[in-house]
Amino acid sequence: MNPQKQKLLIIGGVAAGTKAAARARRVDPDLEITVITKDQHISYAGCGLPYYIGGVIREEKELLVKHPEDFQVDMDIKVLTLQEAQKILPEEKLVIVKDLSSGEIRNMPYDKLLLATGAYPLVPPLDGRELGNIFTLRTVSDASALKEKLHGNPREAVVIGGGLIGLEAAENLARLGIKTTVIELAPHVLPPFDRDVALHAEKHLRENGVEILTGTAVKSFTDNGQGEVGAVLTSAGAIKADFAVLAVGVRPNVELGRQCGIALGPTGAIAVNKKMETNIKDIYAAGDCAENTNLITGKPVWYPMGSNANKTGRVAANNIAGGGGDTLEGFLGTAVVKLFDLNLAKTGLSEREARAMDYDLETVLVPAPDRAHYYPGSRQIITKLIVERQNRRVLGAQVFGEGTVDKPIDILATAITLGATVDQVAKLDLAYAPPFSTAMSSTIVAANVMMNKLQGKFKGTNPLALKERMDAGAILLDIRTEEEFFVRSIPGSINIPLGRLMSRLDELDRAKEIIINCKVGFRSYNTLLKLKKLGFENLSILEGGISAYPFEIE
Amino acid sequence: MNPQKQKLLIIGGVAAGTKAAARARRVDPDLEITVITKDQHISYAGCGLPYYIGGVIREEKELLVKHPEDFQVDMDIKVLTLQEAQKILPEEKLVIVKDLSSGEIRNMPYDKLLLATGAYPLVPPLDGRELGNIFTLRTVSDASALKEKLHGNPREAVVIGGGLIGLEAAENLARLGIKTTVIELAPHVLPPFDRDVALHAEKHLRENGVEILTGTAVKSFTDNGQGEVGAVLTSAGAIKADFAVLAVGVRPNVELGRQCGIALGPTGAIAVNKKMETNIKDIYAAGDCAENTNLITGKPVWYPMGSNANKTGRVAANNIAGGGGDTLEGFLGTAVVKLFDLNLAKTGLSEREARAMDYDLETVLVPAPDRAHYYPGSRQIITKLIVERQNRRVLGAQVFGEGTVDKPIDILATAITLGATVDQVAKLDLAYAPPFSTAMSSTIVAANVMMNKLQGKFKGTNPLALKERMDAGAILLDIRTEEEFFVRSIPGSINIPLGRLMSRLDELDRAKEIIINCKVGFRSYNTLLKLKKLGFENLSILEGGISAYPFEIE
Repeated sequence: MNPQKQKLLIIGGVAAGTKAAARARRVDPDLEITVITKDQHISYAGCGLPYYIGGVIREEKELLVKHPEDFQVDMDIKVLTLQEAQKILPEEKLVIVKDLSSGEIRNMPYDKLLLATGAYPLVPPLDGRELGNIFTLRTVSDASALKEKLHGNPREAVVIGGGLIGLEAAENLARLGIKTTVIELAPHVLPPFDRDVALHAEKHLRENGVEILTGTAVKSFTDNGQGEVGAVLTSAGAIKADFAVLAVGVRPNVELGRQCGIALGPTGAIAVNKKMETNIKDIYAAGDCAENTNLITGKPVWYPMGSNANKTGRVAANNIAGGGGDTLEGFLGTAVVKLFDLNLAKTGLSEREARAMDYDLETVLVPAPDRAHYYPGSRQIITKLIVERQNRRVLGAQVFGEGTVDKPIDILATAITLGATVDQVAKLDLAYAPPFSTAMSSTIVAANVMMNKLQGKFKGTNPLALKERMDAGAILLDIRTEEEFFVRSIPGSINIPLGRLMSRLDELDRAKEIIINCKVGFRSYNTLLKLKKLGFENLSILEGGISAYPFEIE
Repeated sequence: MNPQKQKLLIIGGVAAGTKAAARARRVDPDLEITVITKDQHISYAGCGLPYYIGGVIREEKELLVKHPEDFQVDMDIKVLTLQEAQKILPEEKLVIVKDLSSGEIRNMPYDKLLLATGAYPLVPPLDGRELGNIFTLRTVSDASALKEKLHGNPREAVVIGGGLIGLEAAENLARLGIKTTVIELAPHVLPPFDRDVALHAEKHLRENGVEILTGTAVKSFTDNGQGEVGAVLTSAGAIKADFAVLAVGVRPNVELGRQCGIALGPTGAIAVNKKMETNIKDIYAAGDCAENTNLITGKPVWYPMGSNANKTGRVAANNIAGGGGDTLEGFLGTAVVKLFDLNLAKTGLSEREARAMDYDLETVLVPAPDRAHYYPGSRQIITKLIVERQNRRVLGAQVFGEGTVDKPIDILATAITLGATVDQVAKLDLAYAPPFSTAMSSTIVAANVMMNKLQGKFKGTNPLALKERMDAGAILLDIRTEEEFFVRSIPGSINIPLGRLMSRLDELDRAKEIIINCKVGFRSYNTLLKLKKLGFENLSILEGGISAYPFEIE
């Protein structure tokens, strides 16, 4: 209306789009701000959808953070739903928009344009994918459709994809009493995690009644005779299903941008600089449609996460409305997931990623209680640290267990962001009181173990390498008490309790490799030092002891 | 025995002493290590004592982490209890030790000596302090004596001192149904915290039935006629007491060291360098008897905390047994406390400390949920950030509320240690999933609010300054809904709900200072921007809204 008013047009109304709109308003009270979305819902909590399915979140409305009228009344922002952006004309600074209710087409002018078009769920081109009762879980509408299906009390579900959303969906379905099978093509679930960590998630899910098939390909869906899915055919056979959830991943919505000449990055998402600018002047991108930078490697990555969407939306708005001084260096791929009673979190590079990039690295697996062992509710967590050997910088971490994992992973994400060495992590002054932590927090203990390892004080054997070592003749020496050994022990291990080790030394063949095992690795370390002093040479510790052993024991 | 063996003698057997002994053994398998202590218990969890009193921890033995025989068997470390070190002879490298059971005196030689003599509870020289039923809470014996008293079902208790231990003791006593009064000389409890934070602890303790008297001096104890305390006489009158707990603070045990010429620092604790060396060659100090350095100011401080004791003990051992390369830069005074359902944590400098040191600083008080608002168990926490204006570095933080506070304070402790600016904190890639956090975590939201304030986007009024401003004529404008205002509002405020503000603008006197209030400050910020645009000039936001308002409302 006002000819002097600068016009900001935002395409996309979930996390990045609405965040950018609200922030732009606060930065510039005079901007004319319009958000268009082809969806009927805006500003919803995408990450809450699995919990809505499971009934942890009861009402659809709890997922809807804000409504179009809130934006109008509180912030003088126009939000238009059911509006599909069909084409961007960068020369004319126009977007051609179709009103999905009326079919009307119109041109919307802009001075600044923000693409916040998000991502869409991948649907593999499988036979039968058009059948009924095959759901994705990306939008509130998706979730409501699946929720509707659940009212018919289905008994068997197949979740295709063992990533974060797939496993959260599987947990929530299993909690409803539905027999749930997860099918994952990769060798383990939670592909961003390392296998020695992810196997614990599989074990825990199985213990809670969820079937897990890894290394398994889905081939097609069969018809139950009523145009609905009846079974999922996989490389491991047919699995009966009253419904299926497709959670094989998402791809960025970039077509609209690509067609008008906006450059994509190597990940397939929209390339942006640190100010969230695309290659076309006055066009920005934020949220799941935009590419990210990995803070450690400086390389392009794509982390479609709600937390990143909020931050990139805010930075875009600061630069659009506030003069251009705000920058975002990158992200670490930090993530956390709750699966029944097991929590898993990661930040930075996984061991697999770091090895693929030829980092000279060291890793440790260190179990420790999450709070004072004598305080009620104390639970074990296991910290995996990945450190670059030469400069001793922390490259990545994974923390898992029934205790608190988000705190240590956030401490480590902060440390990695600020370039900390493992030595600096070991000296952090973290908050201690019995209800919250141990005097030496799990993170500090893990850093100390890493420092010992970097100094060559001990050699570790990763549990994934154990079988190969034992096949090659290594002795697995379990120095726990007879009672502990009786309750649970690794097949093929021999038990000499620590207290009797000195009198039973002759049972150990010095010519052989000896891998020492206990509950968490601490007694193993003391034993290794003792045996070393006695002239044993080929010694190592089973990292993380029986606590970190990721395989099922019969 | 073996003449070549180097002898390490450690005086003190709680946290630092036992930690150093165990670490020294792992670093040097050949060292002859002896720990002496005059106490009968070693390696106990001092921070767990209040919870033992309250029955959260049931058995005394749960507090005892290790026993002398464990050290002998597992680590070849000699631990001698009931041994009092009477004199150090640094020239002769001897310690004169008295056996408290036999009375025998002997000389113990050392090559390296570690003082880990800890701290003792202050007992002010008040009349009646020798009466029965006046307890301190420093050792397992102290706790067991108090626990014994509780078997007689006492009804009224007075806790003298409103610091961490005093308040934890008060909580645990009140939970047992004992009418408990806390007396604190300072103007507020939890003296290391700022008043705008600590007042929330007082409010919460009162809501849970604990009486709190601040700014109150204890004058003497009166006799109940049986040689036991009957009442505590204070500047606020006599308070009946079946028993009293003295928790007015601790002082470092330095006499033994001082007498042989070991230098003390300005705090009265033993001066040590970064390697934990004292001024006398081959004598080290660690744990509560040793002075610390504040990481931010570089100045000597004294933080007698179990977490620090473990770290200083370890560094001392690394230098004693491992060649001297380990250093400790300092601590932040990080602390956390649970009081009923309220958690409070701090790290770095308080506002009061920073102002006393003439830092040019800015503060914010920012409420936010600790996890997704729609996820069950989501609770509010309030973050206070203290930032140096010029270089934008975070100097300190305090976080409190019914939600998780140890995670944000540890993130901020890590950030402060590594020299982070508030801008860096705002961009941290922290773990997000609905059960653990919000998409923009509370810490990031607080950092963003601070950035807005540093940019001059708004002026804040601290709740502690509100009364003075209102007395000077300021209007407190509450823009919440009528329902919210009805439930709880600050006396003297006027209510114009945000939706009606535009039509009721004439009710606001533009000549007056206007302080805007809402629930957490967010709507206030949007309102301030709106009113500013309409030409209002003298505007500010009540920091943290009604959520951070620390005074009781009738």
